[in-house]
Amino acid sequence: MAVLPESDAFGAMCRDYHEHGEAFEVVERDDGFLNLPGGPEVYFTTPEEWDDLDHTAVEWAEGHVLDVGCGPGRHALELQQRGHDVTGIDLSPGAMAVARDRGVEDVRECDVVDAGGLDEQFDTALMLGNNFGLVGSAERAPEILGALADATTSDAALVASSMDPTMTDEQVHLDYHERNRANGRLPGRVRIRTRYRRYVGEWHDYLHVAPDTMRELVDDTPWTVVDVEQQGPHYVAKLRPA
Amino acid sequence: MAVLPESDAFGAMCRDYHEHGEAFEVVERDDGFLNLPGGPEVYFTTPEEWDDLDHTAVEWAEGHVLDVGCGPGRHALELQQRGHDVTGIDLSPGAMAVARDRGVEDVRECDVVDAGGLDEQFDTALMLGNNFGLVGSAERAPEILGALADATTSDAALVASSMDPTMTDEQVHLDYHERNRANGRLPGRVRIRTRYRRYVGEWHDYLHVAPDTMRELVDDTPWTVVDVEQQGPHYVAKLRPA
Repeated sequence: MAVLPESDAFGAMCRDYHEHGEAFEVVERDDGFLNLPGGPEVYFTTPEEWDDLDHTAVEWAEGHVLDVGCGPGRHALELQQRGHDVTGIDLSPGAMAVARDRGVEDVRECDVVDAGGLDEQFDTALMLGNNFGLVGSAERAPEILGALADATTSDAALVASSMDPTMTDEQVHLDYHERNRANGRLPGRVRIRTRYRRYVGEWHDYLHVAPDTMRELVDDTPWTVVDVEQQGPHYVAKLRPA
Repeated sequence: MAVLPESDAFGAMCRDYHEHGEAFEVVERDDGFLNLPGGPEVYFTTPEEWDDLDHTAVEWAEGHVLDVGCGPGRHALELQQRGHDVTGIDLSPGAMAVARDRGVEDVRECDVVDAGGLDEQFDTALMLGNNFGLVGSAERAPEILGALADATTSDAALVASSMDPTMTDEQVHLDYHERNRANGRLPGRVRIRTRYRRYVGEWHDYLHVAPDTMRELVDDTPWTVVDVEQQGPHYVAKLRPA
């Protein structure tokens, strides 16, 4: 694999785990909170290891699928197995190279906000692994979700997973939510970056929302929530053009 | 346990692992390199899980033992089992509380450089778990090792473990060593801090040296190396008053 930029912490982690079976994932939040969310293992799980929500998400997919933030391709690979055409988009050179090496047939470097410019109309857009969070903030959500409307057919499905950030009793998170509210932000907006060895990802906004908040958020967009399956704080939602 | 200061990242990690069986250890080096050295598990291992070097170290201990940087007390507990009086010193409130809770009978807050002021003369000083590194740098080593001579009897043993930093082929470490040399430092001097959740330890110097470098370093001190047992880059050395 080509040398990765020092900002591709996520990709370097994926590459090392893919090549050597060993790596770690550290996520740093802008209040200094470090977390090891689940390790690279999670991004390489096979369907036998998935929870019900991942299975539901894959079953909800229809036709030609756009996998937003596909990473090393765990969902894309399973969808290909099931006969779908899949286009994965990501921004991490390392993750994209690993996805290709693992057999994802169509992986492209593309920001979700530019998805409308892809030369295809997809039947499904996936935002899995909490990737509804890529909308970043309440303010930015309409632009991102609009781009996904542009990228998809008029009766497409948008299948998105997220988690209810308020289902925690940890003071460090409650404090973070409170600061967000005091600054006019949704409580689950996190500003984070990935770190791995000497690789330091760029700070970016990521948004966790409860199902009801997702419903309110998409009110201003071409989408409406038609189904939700939830387990504890985690859930997957199916959206359709409004 | 009392609330820990935000700088006690090591102690908070020990506390959470002790209380909930779950925590992680992130060590950040001053070049931005993040590492997960071995996790809190290592500090809680029992003799059945140890490698030969830990067993040798414990067998080399004589009489009343001073355990420098005892952490949650894995060596101290085994030495007590074997009938030794043990005094553990550490600077982490969290680690000291855990050590006491696990049964280490005499744990004191004391910097190694102040060990000469303890109101006892020890037969053995231990610097295990790479804790020879607490000498910090070539310049500081004589002061630290002098303090340990003051704290011990005239025929004491100093049992210290370290690792040969040059036994690596990883470019990120070789680059770090080279920068050290260019700045007149030993290659294995690392400036590091522990991070855990929102806890951020203080930056401190830690020194990894090959056995021959240890021999040279102690030339200026009251000690001489009389025995070394090595496995790969790791080793334990026994020192005696010169």
